[in-house]
Amino acid sequence: MTARFTVTYLVQGDAASIAARAEAIAVEQSVEMPVAAIESAAVLRDVVGRVEDIADQGNGEFAVRIALATATVGSDAGQFLNMLFGNTSLHADVVLQDVEIPAALAATFGGPRVGIPGLRARIGVHGRAFTGSALKPQGMPPDALATLAGRLAEGGLDFIKDDHGLADQGYSPFAARVTACAAAIAAAARRTGHPTRYIPSITGNLDQMRAQLRLAREHGIDCAMVVPMLSGVANLQAVRAAFPDIALFAHPSFGGAARVAPELLLGKLMPLFGADAVIFPNHGGRFGYTPATCRRLAATARAAGVPALPVPAGGMTLDRTAELLDFYGQDTMLLIGGNLLMARARIAEEAAAFARAVAQHPYAQDHDGH
Amino acid sequence: MTARFTVTYLVQGDAASIAARAEAIAVEQSVEMPVAAIESAAVLRDVVGRVEDIADQGNGEFAVRIALATATVGSDAGQFLNMLFGNTSLHADVVLQDVEIPAALAATFGGPRVGIPGLRARIGVHGRAFTGSALKPQGMPPDALATLAGRLAEGGLDFIKDDHGLADQGYSPFAARVTACAAAIAAAARRTGHPTRYIPSITGNLDQMRAQLRLAREHGIDCAMVVPMLSGVANLQAVRAAFPDIALFAHPSFGGAARVAPELLLGKLMPLFGADAVIFPNHGGRFGYTPATCRRLAATARAAGVPALPVPAGGMTLDRTAELLDFYGQDTMLLIGGNLLMARARIAEEAAAFARAVAQHPYAQDHDGH
Repeated sequence: MTARFTVTYLVQGDAASIAARAEAIAVEQSVEMPVAAIESAAVLRDVVGRVEDIADQGNGEFAVRIALATATVGSDAGQFLNMLFGNTSLHADVVLQDVEIPAALAATFGGPRVGIPGLRARIGVHGRAFTGSALKPQGMPPDALATLAGRLAEGGLDFIKDDHGLADQGYSPFAARVTACAAAIAAAARRTGHPTRYIPSITGNLDQMRAQLRLAREHGIDCAMVVPMLSGVANLQAVRAAFPDIALFAHPSFGGAARVAPELLLGKLMPLFGADAVIFPNHGGRFGYTPATCRRLAATARAAGVPALPVPAGGMTLDRTAELLDFYGQDTMLLIGGNLLMARARIAEEAAAFARAVAQHPYAQDHDGH
Repeated sequence: MTARFTVTYLVQGDAASIAARAEAIAVEQSVEMPVAAIESAAVLRDVVGRVEDIADQGNGEFAVRIALATATVGSDAGQFLNMLFGNTSLHADVVLQDVEIPAALAATFGGPRVGIPGLRARIGVHGRAFTGSALKPQGMPPDALATLAGRLAEGGLDFIKDDHGLADQGYSPFAARVTACAAAIAAAARRTGHPTRYIPSITGNLDQMRAQLRLAREHGIDCAMVVPMLSGVANLQAVRAAFPDIALFAHPSFGGAARVAPELLLGKLMPLFGADAVIFPNHGGRFGYTPATCRRLAATARAAGVPALPVPAGGMTLDRTAELLDFYGQDTMLLIGGNLLMARARIAEEAAAFARAVAQHPYAQDHDGH
């Protein structure tokens, strides 16, 4: 008997045909050929996907559990996604809902290295949630972004991240932007006494990502944001291995999360591959995630080997600070970008008010999810 | 005035709210912040996304055309996907339908280098379609896959590719598999006199991809398959630059094509980023693509700077050879995997019959799409 991992797919269908559809998915996600043409007894026994369970969820939707061979993954994160949803992602009637990750695979990928405890230790933040904001809009030159970064840092925020649209564009090249923003944030941190961290956005191919991370490290930066669905998750793994000192924030861009359950893609898989913090669209913001999805996503991220930090974002507003801290508790970072930028010239004061609200919030002692 | 590129999204909505929804997408895919908080006149003029057109398609669906600034892309393929569909991919009511690629961006990414003309010249195939099959199932050791590869090559096929499930697994490491399969195919090619090409599947992070490609090149291999949605499109670009002699076949795995139009993701973007050939699910196979989608996808791939080769696959059967050649014409490769493997011990003879059928097909002179 060889090791298997169990994947749950939500499949649209009817009771008469779901068993055959489930078998077809099990074959598609394993040997991808007619089982009748397989001559190897070992492949038939150890590699062909096995339907473990089919549960009628009502409304023409079935939860199909399929056991796939762990040996098919090797040690490659991309190949793990390939086994989970490679060709089946092309079928519109299937959503990848969940996977139970065996200990051997969890050890192979390693998970978050810094996570919530490392971030708390670095910034000296305990007993409250983290605060964060974002540098926007893209199109601004480095000095304008640095001015904005300095003002936000003067408010005493914990993290200031690049907007995920900031890449290595002509009007704001990575090196110039990061150099200017790092200096502005460091200067503000010296004034406030609070060790505000800058999170630059890392883009391009793996060589470019490493060059950007080396440059960031030279500026004393110990956090970085990656977009794993664009960089490739294997390259997230490579960065995790090469930069153990850098806390990695995963951005959900290009996550197409309507086809992969957000709890799985963002909450479970990104930490598995090494994300120390996971940015995701908060309920009631610009995206359609439900409170239940957000709660599960946050709980899943915190359940990683080293707990990963859930970072709700995406249209959050300052007036929701108390509500969101009640919802997420203290093991979170509130990331408020555009709404904070509405303060324009008063942005340092608004950032300070935001930081105060998070510091003074009466956190529940035994909050849901952690 | 700065250069823009125009993106078409299909958005579910109603006439009363579609204008606001379109504006929201234009903002999300550009500055991602309240426009009222933007102080820079240049950003407002040159960077904020601009709704160009909204066309009611009926059935509650609207085609929304948005012009985005070319300067936001820089020269990074991943950032191009980020601009096209980054955060908006998280909205379930939007499909990324199409993009008009300006000449400057097309030149930046370069497109196919070998393409249809290069593949025809290398194999000496003219006036007919290409033939291909796949090495399956995963779980087989290198010698068994090599035996299969040799038999398929003895049938005189043009291409034999790794199944996309073959990665760098313990039971069949990349180096051992590629060494054995390349030798078996080369030996068969010497016997048949037909220069059958092997297409190994390239996986892992960029370093691993390059190491695999170097090893393949040492074995005289001049074709390789990548899965851009897993490797990251920026790494496809890096491979295109570093291995100009290798024809790159793009596999659609993890394409989640129900949210990005397949004609766009596979037919247009993969060639743009350097794929010389594009594998896609054929109509009437295991996947739900319509004939119209397949026809457009093939036509779009062939419209690349150097025409890219459309490779319909995914549950194709030998008895459909004539029908599919009538449909796709001669600028295609028919990739028949599992159905050919059903022949078991008679596989070389079946491969030869497949090769004959493609060679002897009466191709129409002025076929649709090319």
